[in-house]
Amino acid sequence: MRTIIIGASHSGIQAARTLKKLQPEMDVVLLEKTQTIGFFSSGLNYMLTNKIQDLQESRAISPQALLDEGINLVRLAEVTKIDPVKKVVFYTYGKEVAEHVAYDFLILAMGSTQAALKTPGSDLANILSYKNITQTQKSLAILKQSHEVTIVGAGYIGMELAYALSKQNKKVHLIEQMENILFRYFDSEMVTSVLADLPSNIQLHLNTTPLSFTGVNGKVEETNLSNGATIQNDAVVLAINARPNTSLVQEFLTLNIDGTIAVNEFLQTNYADIYAIGDLIQVPIHGTNTAIYMPLVNHAIRTGIVAAENIVYQNTVKLKPTKKTSVTQLGSFYLSRTGITQEEAPYYNKKVVAVTQQFEDYGFEQNFSQRPLLKLVFEEKELKLIGAQYISKFPRLEFINLLAEFIEKDETALTLSQMEAFFNPLFSAPLHYVQQLALQILAENN
Amino acid sequence: MRTIIIGASHSGIQAARTLKKLQPEMDVVLLEKTQTIGFFSSGLNYMLTNKIQDLQESRAISPQALLDEGINLVRLAEVTKIDPVKKVVFYTYGKEVAEHVAYDFLILAMGSTQAALKTPGSDLANILSYKNITQTQKSLAILKQSHEVTIVGAGYIGMELAYALSKQNKKVHLIEQMENILFRYFDSEMVTSVLADLPSNIQLHLNTTPLSFTGVNGKVEETNLSNGATIQNDAVVLAINARPNTSLVQEFLTLNIDGTIAVNEFLQTNYADIYAIGDLIQVPIHGTNTAIYMPLVNHAIRTGIVAAENIVYQNTVKLKPTKKTSVTQLGSFYLSRTGITQEEAPYYNKKVVAVTQQFEDYGFEQNFSQRPLLKLVFEEKELKLIGAQYISKFPRLEFINLLAEFIEKDETALTLSQMEAFFNPLFSAPLHYVQQLALQILAENN
Repeated sequence: MRTIIIGASHSGIQAARTLKKLQPEMDVVLLEKTQTIGFFSSGLNYMLTNKIQDLQESRAISPQALLDEGINLVRLAEVTKIDPVKKVVFYTYGKEVAEHVAYDFLILAMGSTQAALKTPGSDLANILSYKNITQTQKSLAILKQSHEVTIVGAGYIGMELAYALSKQNKKVHLIEQMENILFRYFDSEMVTSVLADLPSNIQLHLNTTPLSFTGVNGKVEETNLSNGATIQNDAVVLAINARPNTSLVQEFLTLNIDGTIAVNEFLQTNYADIYAIGDLIQVPIHGTNTAIYMPLVNHAIRTGIVAAENIVYQNTVKLKPTKKTSVTQLGSFYLSRTGITQEEAPYYNKKVVAVTQQFEDYGFEQNFSQRPLLKLVFEEKELKLIGAQYISKFPRLEFINLLAEFIEKDETALTLSQMEAFFNPLFSAPLHYVQQLALQILAENN
Repeated sequence: MRTIIIGASHSGIQAARTLKKLQPEMDVVLLEKTQTIGFFSSGLNYMLTNKIQDLQESRAISPQALLDEGINLVRLAEVTKIDPVKKVVFYTYGKEVAEHVAYDFLILAMGSTQAALKTPGSDLANILSYKNITQTQKSLAILKQSHEVTIVGAGYIGMELAYALSKQNKKVHLIEQMENILFRYFDSEMVTSVLADLPSNIQLHLNTTPLSFTGVNGKVEETNLSNGATIQNDAVVLAINARPNTSLVQEFLTLNIDGTIAVNEFLQTNYADIYAIGDLIQVPIHGTNTAIYMPLVNHAIRTGIVAAENIVYQNTVKLKPTKKTSVTQLGSFYLSRTGITQEEAPYYNKKVVAVTQQFEDYGFEQNFSQRPLLKLVFEEKELKLIGAQYISKFPRLEFINLLAEFIEKDETALTLSQMEAFFNPLFSAPLHYVQQLALQILAENN
């Protein structure tokens, strides 16, 4: 039996590895059109801040490691056509040799591309977006030589890039159409301390969008905002939504209105032997009837695992809905979040109560806390936990994963009040943060 | 309405605080026979290693903080008698004034005392055990002046003390009747690296017990072991099991055969308005039909919360069984564990499969891993997670709490393979440790 996976993206790689691990006798063919696999585009930031010396280091795994696991990785293999009835994939190898290969199962993992803007002037030089290594290399070269950079979008990508450029003493303009940074990831009160500490060479422009870009000799020089302001800049980076790469399959697969591929809870498309994963699909949001398009790597990886498991276990493994669990580092702050924020709760018709507390330091040994800020969001009626945000200067790495599991398992303020947490006077408070806030919310809602 | 709590132990304090928080109109009276409340006896170690300068600092909370919360804390109040029918507590204040006070609810939190040995010579001077601050102060003074110290019991207390004394350049003999340190907390393979790194002035004596102590002028000088060895020592510390302080109530309350107070799942004794918590009771073990006596602070705190909640919510809140979740620091290692170990599984008639892996470092930013060792123990049949142990040099603080929640919620290898973990290339591997091991155990048991 053979499974073909198209795209050595993070989801494609994980699907291949999971499948080969669980079913070693499966012939797993992984087709990738470029030379590079599993690239992290945030490598641009790591290059700017000297965390790595070569963009090639910014990857999840090496090609050789996949080959060693018995996966038939073929790079420079560009798929040209899929015949879903005869179950054959056609591709060119090295842009010249035409090949084709039959499959029993097909997993689509072609990933996404940064969306283009329709804003006038968007085709000027030095207006950048990057996703693959070639785009990233080019953007890096231009950004290194720029003095003033405009970033469109203050989500994770835009914020992390702004901090990296700031460290290189660039002047950064950060444009965000919503009323705050990291909107729908964090409530406003949670990012107050980050904003208060924002490097002075990052200038925020909230509640506005670019109306047009103007340039000289074909190169961008000005960004004109909807609020009337004009920004001088040497380069513009579009850190906004990505779009799924579906051109190969849009003629025979059912797509959603946002252009993603429609899949069932087992990640099957309208062809039962074709799965779609990663940045090609929407993901359901825990505790809601909504699915969203959210190109996060952890989501890509989970869908890769689930598709592979459904091939092995005959379509019995449902994808768990997401809580958008994520962590970013901005300056000296670690920001982590999971579930639904208080500000977005009305979008899901949820009535919520919330509690936020800045904790004092504790522990006789070392300071593992540094006055962290924790917010818990509960559904009003049964006081069920549905969201959590945690900002700290010490990386309490697994805390947000724990909070995500609490949400997944429908823990309430009452059940959380007796959570089983380790206690050691050297590095914990007698009552865990979560227990403290659970008791607080119980007291306020008795 | 009035609730009297006897004993400002960790459980008593937490019961008082929880009750006052959830039901502010309740008159909460907390009677404590000594001056000191919420004392951590591990303060002895913190004094030896200069983490604190005064034993008084080794406490969970100050008396003033409890008074500020509206709790009627009365120190130097020694309860002499309880009338469970008339619902009155009699006590002496400052050892002279006789007082009595009526209650609607009574919570017993008298805690435990280090068990005495029946070994010949146990009454010699410099054979020490410590639990309250007076005993700890005395033990500290003797240990500071000792050169060779024998510790009986290589559990958490004994191990942590051994490391603290080792740092003071004392010669330490550690006696353990079982075949390894931290027995029934960690499997042997997990403590190998700790043992390999054991300070040279700590000498382990496994599989043996003290047969007798001999002394000169009433002061201990030799410990004679069942394996024939004789140890020269200036002091002996008994770091073995504690016993519940039940003398006040043993005439009218039902006790278990181990001397603990019998309670139902709401922590009520045979008198429905009398609750017992903390070191006075057994705690059920998750996933078994067994209850054990386990004087851990986090257990004490959870039972304090649950007893208070049952007063407020009319006996509807069941105590969750424990997973013995705990963390200790020994030298450069953080050791954490939850659930059932592979070696103790046969005691519970459980057939298990286990997977252990040392992970490579990861992350572009900082080394938050340092080759940690993770072991997961699954029930053989449904591959349900029942135990986890994690040893690392970086304090991944909430990880063991997350693993405890996974066990509590009956997660299996299959459900864990798609756990929702944050991903950030700066400080995580693309596939979470737990997902990696879950896939490994699935592959091995397909």
